[in-house]
Amino acid sequence: MVREPGVQSDDSPEKRPTLDPWHGHYAARAADMIASEVRALFAVASRPEVVSLAGGMPNVSALPLEVVSAMMADLVTRQGAVALQYGSAQGVESLRESVCEVMALEGIAARPDDVVVTCGSQQALDLVAKVFLDPGDTVVTEAPTYVTAISTFAAYQARVAHVPMDGDGVVPEALADAFDRLRAEGRPAKLFYTVPTFQNPAGVTLAAGRRRRVLEVCRRAGVLVLEDNPYGLLRYDGEPVRPLRADAGRDEVVYLGSFSKTFAPGLRVGWALAPSAVRDRLVLAAESAVLSQSPLTQLVVDRYLRTQPWGDQLKVFREMYRERRDAMLRALTEHMPPGTTWTVPEGGFFVWATLPDGLDAKAMLPRATSARVAYVPGTGFFANGDGRAHLRLSFCYPPPDRIAEGVRRLGDVVAQEIALRDTFGVTGARDGRGPQSPGPELP
Amino acid sequence: MVREPGVQSDDSPEKRPTLDPWHGHYAARAADMIASEVRALFAVASRPEVVSLAGGMPNVSALPLEVVSAMMADLVTRQGAVALQYGSAQGVESLRESVCEVMALEGIAARPDDVVVTCGSQQALDLVAKVFLDPGDTVVTEAPTYVTAISTFAAYQARVAHVPMDGDGVVPEALADAFDRLRAEGRPAKLFYTVPTFQNPAGVTLAAGRRRRVLEVCRRAGVLVLEDNPYGLLRYDGEPVRPLRADAGRDEVVYLGSFSKTFAPGLRVGWALAPSAVRDRLVLAAESAVLSQSPLTQLVVDRYLRTQPWGDQLKVFREMYRERRDAMLRALTEHMPPGTTWTVPEGGFFVWATLPDGLDAKAMLPRATSARVAYVPGTGFFANGDGRAHLRLSFCYPPPDRIAEGVRRLGDVVAQEIALRDTFGVTGARDGRGPQSPGPELP
Ligand SMILES: Cc1ncc(COP(=O)(O)O)c(C=O)c1O
Ligand SMILES: Cc1ncc(COP(=O)(O)O)c(C=O)c1O
Repeated sequence: MVREPGVQSDDSPEKRPTLDPWHGHYAARAADMIASEVRALFAVASRPEVVSLAGGMPNVSALPLEVVSAMMADLVTRQGAVALQYGSAQGVESLRESVCEVMALEGIAARPDDVVVTCGSQQALDLVAKVFLDPGDTVVTEAPTYVTAISTFAAYQARVAHVPMDGDGVVPEALADAFDRLRAEGRPAKLFYTVPTFQNPAGVTLAAGRRRRVLEVCRRAGVLVLEDNPYGLLRYDGEPVRPLRADAGRDEVVYLGSFSKTFAPGLRVGWALAPSAVRDRLVLAAESAVLSQSPLTQLVVDRYLRTQPWGDQLKVFREMYRERRDAMLRALTEHMPPGTTWTVPEGGFFVWATLPDGLDAKAMLPRATSARVAYVPGTGFFANGDGRAHLRLSFCYPPPDRIAEGVRRLGDVVAQEIALRDTFGVTGARDGRGPQSPGPELP
Repeated sequence: MVREPGVQSDDSPEKRPTLDPWHGHYAARAADMIASEVRALFAVASRPEVVSLAGGMPNVSALPLEVVSAMMADLVTRQGAVALQYGSAQGVESLRESVCEVMALEGIAARPDDVVVTCGSQQALDLVAKVFLDPGDTVVTEAPTYVTAISTFAAYQARVAHVPMDGDGVVPEALADAFDRLRAEGRPAKLFYTVPTFQNPAGVTLAAGRRRRVLEVCRRAGVLVLEDNPYGLLRYDGEPVRPLRADAGRDEVVYLGSFSKTFAPGLRVGWALAPSAVRDRLVLAAESAVLSQSPLTQLVVDRYLRTQPWGDQLKVFREMYRERRDAMLRALTEHMPPGTTWTVPEGGFFVWATLPDGLDAKAMLPRATSARVAYVPGTGFFANGDGRAHLRLSFCYPPPDRIAEGVRRLGDVVAQEIALRDTFGVTGARDGRGPQSPGPELP
């Protein structure tokens, strides 16, 4: 029903060659705005007969909708004149207090004054990029990294340099080397963007023992850490790890959080916790971007946190997602041909799989969708074309039996690809093997 | 309660000189992000003893809150899984259909496919700037113009060139001259940003007879028109005028609309109607800015438009604001010393006043707030420091008797300023006199 942007059916009028009268008028940055591969998949992946392991949509139907509904009605009746009015660009104060309590659960001590509420953490990412990145600046990220972060940095004409991860997250020595190399090349890194916990897409977590070392490497190199942590509270087993921000100096990290995965993405409420001087600039940038966020959706989140047993709801989410993760891991073990490997995430939404030698996840996708299963090919998560050997599998949205069926279909497709390879020779790219092995090098 | 951004009390810790460790790291554009003078006023203007003629907040308490509350509850109960989930970056399709019906009321024929829903029309303004403006590019605007448009263009390091208005809006010949001059100077205009109807801040409307001529001037110069029309449906007398977009070619205008003034700003729902190729880029820019708008607030607006007698509500708003405008105009006539002039708006929220020779609205503001009345000095609405002779008076928020009292206080302050001037000589700036007289020249 909702037409997906960036997706055009072959007979759409837009496909016909038209003369764009404003062709020569766009900003240079507009040329770098790219449609994400994830989006382009949605039309296919949302056909009912397809098991989609592609999207990263949380399962909001697990929320008590009647309760949320009643809460919202009461809010508008009692506080409508505030909820429906313009708000401040920094965000509703009582929500900023609640946000500090949420962060405290993971060990972060922060003041509401240093929080800026944003339209999802995506907007926080955009505003940080806007405030820091000049054209040609370099952002260092994990390889692979969050797909929309790549397009956001590209929209400010920054360059992305990747640093490899292993099963314990980014390798501190490789990070130090990257900073050194970039400095020697005359383009020192400005930001280190990291999703250290239950990473999207790789599902790996930066080991607790590496975190101080990563901070130290960034401190030495004078690089600001941009820590993106939307999944931290969704741990299914293992020991909690503290966010980088919890053990860093106040000025060393801009921390991004979100209620999209712990409550509901449709409210579009996320935040940035930033050093005071950075916060001032983020507030100005937010004001010129949107004047203010919706006080209504902010107050809904605040009231939910203050009046509902949301810790219990979080437990419901965790149990549901754990079951789905386990269904996926079991099915992978059962159905994947030898030579396929995958990460085992302790939380979050994603498993990162690596195909047997010579297979290409991007080339395989049409065959997979014919077999009624969808995933995201790894290439979307690299800025440099790497990632063909990989695919991201999400276990957040379909129920366990559908996940098992999807993985079974995928196993068949991979087996057929192997047979093709053995008959016709190597068809795929032989790029870096990602988390399990020496990863792709810096571009 | 909500701390206003950009406003710091003198004893705030932020005021103490601190070393910003990221001082040399910001993007060049961050240096051009400016705190708006309007925002800085809010702390003072919101003191209960002050009559604020400063803000532009619509009077949302005139909405039937119980009805909105019930509608929202029902929406979450029935469509919660959609309303609380991620949506498309272009916006909810049924709302885009409704938006086309709203635009049709003013004579615009458009397809839902060419509409992009945004977080208030402010975000649409930001995205258009992002897609079109390289550093150093020039945007032509009316003088004065909407304050946040100035800061949005500044955030993309564009230059603003003003064109004078008279009581019938922008002067087409002056616009043509400006385009010629800018081209001759080697910095041709990229956009003409205009609020043609019930302008913020001047309250004037571009005369129907001038509209085709303005379009023609832009067409000849190859300049894209950015038409911002949040107040068009709030007309209190006189004949409706068609938006520029209604009589332009499909590719000539990017049109911005908003539900902030006709429904509720706290929902943050606005839109852009754009040529197809521009729309594609706006959707990509929206995706990298916020992933998607809130489907919840979009569905609230859509349902309101489809199920509520919103035309009747619009009548309620119109009658309420007409009464307030009349109260302001009556009070101005009664209390303003000779030599003061003002515009007579046929709709919208604002009256633009010009002080007697030699008076300075910015210098006068502290005296006015001591006398318990607030306004916005004209300087905020110019990119070039002009506007000291002017002030913007809003009649949207306080009830009629408070407006009358505020203008009475203001009249006293102006009379005292005149007495000071006559005793000590000219204290104010002698810049352009705005709409009533030959305006400020191009910078
Ligand atoms: C790593 C990461 N960062 C940021 C986001 C954006 O989330 P939101 O804007 O909904 O808060 C996502 C969403 O999937 C994500 O996976
Ligand atoms: C001329 C003009 N444009 C745009 C806006 C932004 O409105 P919104 O973002 O709430 O749609 C305003 C708000 O006052 C305005 O006066």
